[in-house]
Amino acid sequence: MAGGDELKLLGMWASPFVARVKLALHLKGVVNYEYVEEDLGNKSELFLKSNPVHKTVPVLIHNGNPICESGIIVQYIDEVFSGAGASLLPADPYDRAVALFWAAYIEDKIVPPWRMVFRVKTEERAECMKQTSGAVDVLEGGLKECSQGKDYFGGDSVGYVDVLLGGLYSWVHATNVLSGTKLFDATKTPLLAAWFERFGELDAAKAVRLDVDRLVEYAKMLPTRSPATLGNQQIKPTELIQ
Amino acid sequence: MAGGDELKLLGMWASPFVARVKLALHLKGVVNYEYVEEDLGNKSELFLKSNPVHKTVPVLIHNGNPICESGIIVQYIDEVFSGAGASLLPADPYDRAVALFWAAYIEDKIVPPWRMVFRVKTEERAECMKQTSGAVDVLEGGLKECSQGKDYFGGDSVGYVDVLLGGLYSWVHATNVLSGTKLFDATKTPLLAAWFERFGELDAAKAVRLDVDRLVEYAKMLPTRSPATLGNQQIKPTELIQ
Repeated sequence: MAGGDELKLLGMWASPFVARVKLALHLKGVVNYEYVEEDLGNKSELFLKSNPVHKTVPVLIHNGNPICESGIIVQYIDEVFSGAGASLLPADPYDRAVALFWAAYIEDKIVPPWRMVFRVKTEERAECMKQTSGAVDVLEGGLKECSQGKDYFGGDSVGYVDVLLGGLYSWVHATNVLSGTKLFDATKTPLLAAWFERFGELDAAKAVRLDVDRLVEYAKMLPTRSPATLGNQQIKPTELIQ
Repeated sequence: MAGGDELKLLGMWASPFVARVKLALHLKGVVNYEYVEEDLGNKSELFLKSNPVHKTVPVLIHNGNPICESGIIVQYIDEVFSGAGASLLPADPYDRAVALFWAAYIEDKIVPPWRMVFRVKTEERAECMKQTSGAVDVLEGGLKECSQGKDYFGGDSVGYVDVLLGGLYSWVHATNVLSGTKLFDATKTPLLAAWFERFGELDAAKAVRLDVDRLVEYAKMLPTRSPATLGNQQIKPTELIQ
């Protein structure tokens, strides 16, 4: 990072999408940035000006330029701070396409039913967990395809898909507590379960880890709605915790 | 494209997502590929093997490697055939992030309500059109931001967002016929309306253009469901016409 660069991250403590950005910055060795906690009930002028379309966190502001959407921010960090840390996205176009495919899978197939787990009434939670688990099962094949028998989706080192899934690390723990089941179950998805343990031991993961009890309390306070209503609203993954 | 390259596109004639891939290939001057029309009611073994997760078109198979999801395929084409035609995604990381942001906006905010226009009962169509139009209105600002006063989202030449939106060109016409309104209305979104006219004049657009009457007939035959059911199914943009 150049000496004169100004880097500001607008976030919200419980957001797994903000955690992705923090992870990427940590992996790239970028520590010299300002973190601003946004009050989503009373959004700041800077925040609204920086992400007027979605009004969601995270927003990364680099030298005055706002970048929105966690996946796009992580790609931006990967390109701009390319000198530090391993590249998150593979250089080979096909490997890159495969990584982008599984990243999109997480966003489109795993996150939406998962977010509903925290938004539906208790009696509907099991069905949402079932959908989420079913989607997670398929991701086992994604890890196999991306890692090629190595430790991470990125191969020998943490890559783009690891960051996107890893941002959800603390929420996996919170989900396990809330649901009484294991989202990355060693009997059903042994590769993912091992990945999860391994990921949690990384310095970057430890640096952004949240207190699970606090997260569970937070999740319990989220307003609940019916799944049909949620489905109709075309809810963005970035709205999981808002 | 190297002489020994094998390139195969699995598609379905009415799919706007397949049109995106055809557009990208045309813009890159890649004409030497095999197009295979898939019968989505009786999917081929090659198709199911190539996209086992989503089982949707388009799939591009390059030297035996399948690439899925239209946006990812277009990026792949942009990288692999980088010697031909202008680059679709900007080289500058910030401009690239802005293009990816608006591309994601089209996928997440415009396509989902738009696809419902063709899937709901006639009496519910107006509400879906209203949602789609509202999302299109916001895209006017995206065109302004991306084009910087030039002709395309990509600036002087057609870029990534142009291809993603441009793939929907024939469906815009079909939507106008079916709804009796104009999706890119010159009074509400003058920049987009002018873009639409300009885009339609491109050789690439003419090469992939579909017969609007045939599309309208096809759209009328799509089975209808209630918006609530549609919303709950986490429908992917790629399933718009399936």
